[in-house]
Amino acid sequence: MSPSQQVANQSPPRAVVLLSGGLDSATVLAIATARGYECHTMSFDYGQRHRAELDAAEKLAKTLGAKTHRVMNMDMRAIGGSALTDNSIDVPVSGVDENEIPITYVPARNTVFLSYALGLAEVLEADNVFIGVNAVDYSGYPDCRPEYIAAFESMANLATKAGVEGHRMHIQTPLIDLTKAQIIQQGLVNGVDYSLTVSCYQADDLGRACGVCDSCRLRKQGFSDAGVVDPTLYQS
Amino acid sequence: MSPSQQVANQSPPRAVVLLSGGLDSATVLAIATARGYECHTMSFDYGQRHRAELDAAEKLAKTLGAKTHRVMNMDMRAIGGSALTDNSIDVPVSGVDENEIPITYVPARNTVFLSYALGLAEVLEADNVFIGVNAVDYSGYPDCRPEYIAAFESMANLATKAGVEGHRMHIQTPLIDLTKAQIIQQGLVNGVDYSLTVSCYQADDLGRACGVCDSCRLRKQGFSDAGVVDPTLYQS
Repeated sequence: MSPSQQVANQSPPRAVVLLSGGLDSATVLAIATARGYECHTMSFDYGQRHRAELDAAEKLAKTLGAKTHRVMNMDMRAIGGSALTDNSIDVPVSGVDENEIPITYVPARNTVFLSYALGLAEVLEADNVFIGVNAVDYSGYPDCRPEYIAAFESMANLATKAGVEGHRMHIQTPLIDLTKAQIIQQGLVNGVDYSLTVSCYQADDLGRACGVCDSCRLRKQGFSDAGVVDPTLYQS
Repeated sequence: MSPSQQVANQSPPRAVVLLSGGLDSATVLAIATARGYECHTMSFDYGQRHRAELDAAEKLAKTLGAKTHRVMNMDMRAIGGSALTDNSIDVPVSGVDENEIPITYVPARNTVFLSYALGLAEVLEADNVFIGVNAVDYSGYPDCRPEYIAAFESMANLATKAGVEGHRMHIQTPLIDLTKAQIIQQGLVNGVDYSLTVSCYQADDLGRACGVCDSCRLRKQGFSDAGVVDPTLYQS
């Protein structure tokens, strides 16, 4: 039974939604809300270059009706190894090579994010965690693949008190098989204002995008393929 | 082939060792070092009550020969739900009920810790992560069970760039089947100075133990069962 089919006077089921402030996770939040979940959003301040996305996440949580929003402070810089957290590595602007894992990959990032979400879900007695991974446009990231998500879900159900007591935890990935254009179409149907989202790996303090990094290129192409005017604010 | 069997002029294999500053993880570090690994230790400042264990971890990393030591700052308080991170919940002193998950269980804690260790292991090109979980004396924690560890390892090998490229990641749990007394005996053989370790859930700033919380009781019993003088500093 989907939550929206439940009788009206039951309280809605809770979900934890990972919200980066980007296009994908904003769409996920809108989808989870449309499906009837009471959404609790979680963002991460992990020393990323593109800090404007944290402001974007806060705005999106409000406009898309999240019940609570949390920013977790963490320390990916102490681990290093990615252009997104290590200032000595340049953000690439030359396009995605489908046979290589991009240098913007942050080691174990989705695993860390999902682990925190799992902890919060347990405290809130939420049986669902939503994450905006996508295996189509970002196939270079190992932790965006369906087999990875399935393995995380199996582990999660052994990790927690809730799992031991018989509550199944579900990791929901509503975007996993969608193209960027399809994601944008889903978001527009569910009321996402994409001018509030920040996807750029090196956005400025005002959230304006560079227009040339891999993330900007994929996003631009998505709006073009969807036949929708691109509302992104660019630096020039 | 175990690392100690490798020819002498090869550089030693690297391992990430989770080091809380307690008795168990100190023993794990000594075992990993004895097995020939170059050890990189990782502690977590997660708003725990017993902060003296962080000082203990630093001392232990030095005296037990870790190559590097990192303290990751994180934010378990934003999640809450445990007596160890939530000051409104009292630490229980009435003993462990084997049929209940104790209130000192921190939601998803080992999953979060192992996720960070996985990220560091990937950056260091280490194929091993050591964690001092134990299924005998702490059977109430779901994330200390062998089936949980196996599921985490499976997930880890799908999560990372290293896994995609064919490096197997191993989660090593040398204490998992040992009693507390056996752990202490293993540590003494491998040179652990247990007076440097802090196990108490509510140690004071000097690292002195309360002597009555669940962790103190298990530790005391361990020294007694091992027939070893308890070197713990108590508050009274």
